[in-house]
Amino acid sequence: MTESSPQETRQGRIKTLTTALATALESGALINVRKMLNSLHPAEIARLLESLPARERRLAWELIEADLEGDVLSYAGDEVRILLMREMDAQELVAATEGLDTDDLVDILQDLPDVVIHTVLHSMDEQDRYRVVSALSYPEDTAGGLMNTDTITVRPDVTLDVVLRYLRQRGEIPETTDSLIVVTRADQYIGLLSLADLLTRNPALTVAEVMIRDVAGIPASLPVNEVAHLFEQHDLISAPVVDVDGSLLGRITIDDVVDVIRDEAEHSVMSMAGLHEEDIFAPVVASARRRGVWLGINLATAFLASWVIGLFEATLQQIVALAVLMPIVASMGGIAGSQTITLVIRGMALGRVGVANARRLIMKELAVGALNGLLWAIVVALVAGLWFQDARIGAIIGAAMIINLVVAASAGAMLPLIIRRMGVDPALAGTVILTTITDVVGFMAFLGLATIFLL
Amino acid sequence: MTESSPQETRQGRIKTLTTALATALESGALINVRKMLNSLHPAEIARLLESLPARERRLAWELIEADLEGDVLSYAGDEVRILLMREMDAQELVAATEGLDTDDLVDILQDLPDVVIHTVLHSMDEQDRYRVVSALSYPEDTAGGLMNTDTITVRPDVTLDVVLRYLRQRGEIPETTDSLIVVTRADQYIGLLSLADLLTRNPALTVAEVMIRDVAGIPASLPVNEVAHLFEQHDLISAPVVDVDGSLLGRITIDDVVDVIRDEAEHSVMSMAGLHEEDIFAPVVASARRRGVWLGINLATAFLASWVIGLFEATLQQIVALAVLMPIVASMGGIAGSQTITLVIRGMALGRVGVANARRLIMKELAVGALNGLLWAIVVALVAGLWFQDARIGAIIGAAMIINLVVAASAGAMLPLIIRRMGVDPALAGTVILTTITDVVGFMAFLGLATIFLL
Repeated sequence: MTESSPQETRQGRIKTLTTALATALESGALINVRKMLNSLHPAEIARLLESLPARERRLAWELIEADLEGDVLSYAGDEVRILLMREMDAQELVAATEGLDTDDLVDILQDLPDVVIHTVLHSMDEQDRYRVVSALSYPEDTAGGLMNTDTITVRPDVTLDVVLRYLRQRGEIPETTDSLIVVTRADQYIGLLSLADLLTRNPALTVAEVMIRDVAGIPASLPVNEVAHLFEQHDLISAPVVDVDGSLLGRITIDDVVDVIRDEAEHSVMSMAGLHEEDIFAPVVASARRRGVWLGINLATAFLASWVIGLFEATLQQIVALAVLMPIVASMGGIAGSQTITLVIRGMALGRVGVANARRLIMKELAVGALNGLLWAIVVALVAGLWFQDARIGAIIGAAMIINLVVAASAGAMLPLIIRRMGVDPALAGTVILTTITDVVGFMAFLGLATIFLL
Repeated sequence: MTESSPQETRQGRIKTLTTALATALESGALINVRKMLNSLHPAEIARLLESLPARERRLAWELIEADLEGDVLSYAGDEVRILLMREMDAQELVAATEGLDTDDLVDILQDLPDVVIHTVLHSMDEQDRYRVVSALSYPEDTAGGLMNTDTITVRPDVTLDVVLRYLRQRGEIPETTDSLIVVTRADQYIGLLSLADLLTRNPALTVAEVMIRDVAGIPASLPVNEVAHLFEQHDLISAPVVDVDGSLLGRITIDDVVDVIRDEAEHSVMSMAGLHEEDIFAPVVASARRRGVWLGINLATAFLASWVIGLFEATLQQIVALAVLMPIVASMGGIAGSQTITLVIRGMALGRVGVANARRLIMKELAVGALNGLLWAIVVALVAGLWFQDARIGAIIGAAMIINLVVAASAGAMLPLIIRRMGVDPALAGTVILTTITDVVGFMAFLGLATIFLL
């Protein structure tokens, strides 16, 4: 945090590093690069590695000191992390993961083969192993998978003074601790004792008298995006995680929630373009293969649209102006539909759109679609009519435009809700289905009307 | 936080509220609705209002108790907030904003007309007014605009024991305080004293001996997205904001940074579809007008593509199969390009892509585009060749496909960097320019090659 503009400085560092690594590869003088790299914060090293092309990244990774490796891995994105770990043997992984927090360690372990997990677990002391194994038993995308087990618990019947003396004796508090967790003798979660209260309230009071009771324990099975909603809504820094019986399992801290929020929004943007990758320097063939699938699906829908056009070959043969104009109707439908579907998909992700207000939203989007359809239909009709000196062509393209924009609005509003009900991610499937609909309807309406009225 | 699934429950509440409000509008019995609404957390009320259609939203807003209004406004999205405030007079706004934190208040004030700001400021005591005025002097999207002025400062030369007694006497600590700020007598920021250290270290030590010195003050002019990077990278809960001379101005807390992260990613998704709105129930005409602009721009580019097709009218007249097949080339180029541009735009936003690694990234994307171009060109060539029983048509569409996918990859990788250098938001302008390029190149390559080789 010493730089005034981290963005620019990072770009500068990437450039220096890339050049230095290239030179070093030839000359073998890596000492300076090593020094520079290891003086950075692990998070910054992770970002740098993500910004480097594959060969330089591998080389830079080898230069990083062993005791930093674990932290760097925990800050790196999933894809880059897996790539880096593939180069490490079990021994190195054990060394790298020593001293990591449970949640970071669990994150890393989840990407490893079973035999390596076993070796890493074997190297830990019993208590740590127990914690990690229990955290591993929850899916990655639930509160249980996100939690850390480094809680400090206190009993409700002791005085604040006792807690204060305990903490001073203990000598250390885990990072991101804003409150201690109050539990019964049977480890049942009952409330939170904030550090602020501990510092300001009368030390003679008992924990029970001071503790916050209105923060409920988060069930371990709660999906992470709902955990994020809770944190945002109640401005939480940390919150307890409980099992079905209300027993304390661990705690979730805001830094992990920030990652969830970042990933969730990121996932929407990427999915809508059919992307799963985050590593900008993923190997070319791997990248091409993953994107190729998406292109293949779109090719199939493009052929479907072509087939629709093919139905009207005879019409096109007679009036070639139709071929010139037809992409306009399809393209405008696609744009209008993608606006509606983006609004609805993000509204659903933020919990603003659901079955309860779907009907009203569809009505509103239909009205917007109709209004814009009408407006731009007039413009298109005028331009097309003048261009081809034929008022009937203008009228037909205008009518097709209104039809397609209304269809686009309804499809854009309804598709995400229908797709989610089918258990599929609307951000991924929605856009393909939508453009298929707007293409097919666009060509069908325009060429169909033309066949009826112009021939 | 008492519900196990907030999403579903919220949907339930929206449904209950909408129905209850509709009934109440007819019968006039609003008591139950009022009770239900005011029992919720202000953040939850804000989300509910955002989920309600305009008429119900206005009605529900009138039912909310005056002392909750300020908090609800501070949790609502910009657009809905402005809409709600438009219904309030200056007096109501003064009442609503009483007791808000500086940062929330500043957020709200920024959307109000000058005369109302003046009235609100006039109603505050001098110290608060001074704080708000100084916060208002920084742009909304900088550290200064994000900060809160509710800092607790301590001097470096006192002992922890003195600080502990001071806090106990003070009796209250502002929310989201994880550390006190250490300043010189001249108010120069020098370090942080964490509550954790205060609780665990020897009380006889001085603040200077215990304080954290490696968190630099954030310059008030730093853009908010860079503030977010700093928080994410160093897992900060709160951080001090300083002016150019290093004097303490205030502090930024993680809850506001979470909003920045959420908004930033949201902004990318929305901009790429040409959306500025977040209010799903914005008035139809306002919504249609804003989206209409985007549709108009796209219509202009669609006409450009049509004009390109028009250049080949004579060719199309002779071989109508070309009209049937031509949308495939344009569409595949659009899809491939949008994958690359999405990857680059998000990479830029996350600081992974910049001038330093641009050349390497463009090379990689070109390779991916060429590989996929080749693969799908073969598939398209086979299908098209068989469909129209003409190997030459197959060869031509295959060649056009390779050309367009390579162009799409280079344009997708380069456009965001060029557009940002021009000072324009790549997420907004990038996609329009890109599809214009892929459409024009797609039609030009396919119909051009056909004209050369088939006529």
